[in-house]
Amino acid sequence: MRHSISIIGSGNVATNLAFALCDAGYTINEICSRNINHAAELSDQIPGCVPTSHVNLSNSESRIFILSVNDDAIEHMASQIKLPLDSYIFHTSGTVDLGALSQIQANRGILYPLQTFSRNQMISFDKVPLLIEGDDLTTSGILFELGESISEQVLLATSEERRQLHLAAVFASNFTNRMLAAAQDLLSSTSLDLEMLKPLVNQSLKNAFKVGPDQALTGPAKRGDLATLTKHEQLLQSHPDLLTIYELLSQKIVNKFGESTDEI
Amino acid sequence: MRHSISIIGSGNVATNLAFALCDAGYTINEICSRNINHAAELSDQIPGCVPTSHVNLSNSESRIFILSVNDDAIEHMASQIKLPLDSYIFHTSGTVDLGALSQIQANRGILYPLQTFSRNQMISFDKVPLLIEGDDLTTSGILFELGESISEQVLLATSEERRQLHLAAVFASNFTNRMLAAAQDLLSSTSLDLEMLKPLVNQSLKNAFKVGPDQALTGPAKRGDLATLTKHEQLLQSHPDLLTIYELLSQKIVNKFGESTDEI
Repeated sequence: MRHSISIIGSGNVATNLAFALCDAGYTINEICSRNINHAAELSDQIPGCVPTSHVNLSNSESRIFILSVNDDAIEHMASQIKLPLDSYIFHTSGTVDLGALSQIQANRGILYPLQTFSRNQMISFDKVPLLIEGDDLTTSGILFELGESISEQVLLATSEERRQLHLAAVFASNFTNRMLAAAQDLLSSTSLDLEMLKPLVNQSLKNAFKVGPDQALTGPAKRGDLATLTKHEQLLQSHPDLLTIYELLSQKIVNKFGESTDEI
Repeated sequence: MRHSISIIGSGNVATNLAFALCDAGYTINEICSRNINHAAELSDQIPGCVPTSHVNLSNSESRIFILSVNDDAIEHMASQIKLPLDSYIFHTSGTVDLGALSQIQANRGILYPLQTFSRNQMISFDKVPLLIEGDDLTTSGILFELGESISEQVLLATSEERRQLHLAAVFASNFTNRMLAAAQDLLSSTSLDLEMLKPLVNQSLKNAFKVGPDQALTGPAKRGDLATLTKHEQLLQSHPDLLTIYELLSQKIVNKFGESTDEI
């Protein structure tokens, strides 16, 4: 028989996980949030689930508790939460160690979904890599079962690997987002829209995953086209922060790839 | 009757354009490249097309000549090329003005395809935005006809708009590529592969185009999670160049979005 679950947190990750686990057939007994309205907003959408703002969950019928709150709140929350005997507590952070859960009397683990989540748009978990870590084999087994019920890609990862992956994800997700924000800024003085860059961005990233970023890279810096770099730097005079990024990244590319070998 | 075409250049853009125009039913008479082997490599794949290394094309049967060479070679090439009377010459650069073609006796225009191209993988042009600019209405009309034969999105753009878009494209394509290269570097010390970040990157960019980059952004800097930022900066001590990028972009995000409003 599958254990039933309570979720502590009602943010982006908590919301997406709650729906995915509910869809996978798990019973979600409680959504716990300091703000009862936030808890109710989520629990109302899950059959049989109740909201609570109390962190004493020792009377819960759940055996699995998922602590899905901001990274910097995990340790404090863990010092407050009371769970039933022989429970499992899993946090969902990419950067926080198992040790942050040490004050909870329970089997401890990590279930880190490598994806960007929003409360307003649910993600299909099928393709979301889940990185798991348990403090013993039984806990890892429970994590595997839980993970595999919602995703095709469940991997045991050490804390070191998870941290490195989370950092890599900041570059690959948050910072690529900022490059699009920069593009949007630059287009704001024209009648052109960011949308126009979509085919380019999609193709560029498709190529990067297919043949590797270095091989897929194109553009003036890779070609060593210094005249274009100079023109771009002139255009960026009115965007000093974007100019800094442009110079830094272009220089890195020029240093790495040297002069062009392209011919007409 | 459609004019027939010659292409000067045999690089990534030239190759992709040659195939797209051939597929659209245009006759491609010549591929001209300083390196005859490069010209032949491309012309051999196009029925009825011959290679040449001579820039005196005044006996060509073509009326349209597409000059698709590196940006910094356009003006020099334009000073060498000889064309038949009443021809059209179009370059394909995002950054170079029409003026660069002024030494050619011909109607002048620009056909800038906003996409990243490789010689090894042909792109379907259907969704590639083509930005055109002609030095008179007849030339713009010819450009429109040519563009619409291969793409659903042909737009008149001023040189200023095209330059701005090209610069935006560097951020959106080349620099997002560099963020993936950084992620790959960071994963090289683990057993994890860049491929694992693909669902995250795809979702993240999908969100950015759907609701705008600012609204779509997630991650520690947006949440104002300073503890995670500090941990990441520690992890990056052995990657000083990535640390500089991390600090710069994170600071920009923190300045823009301030502290978190997320609750548990």
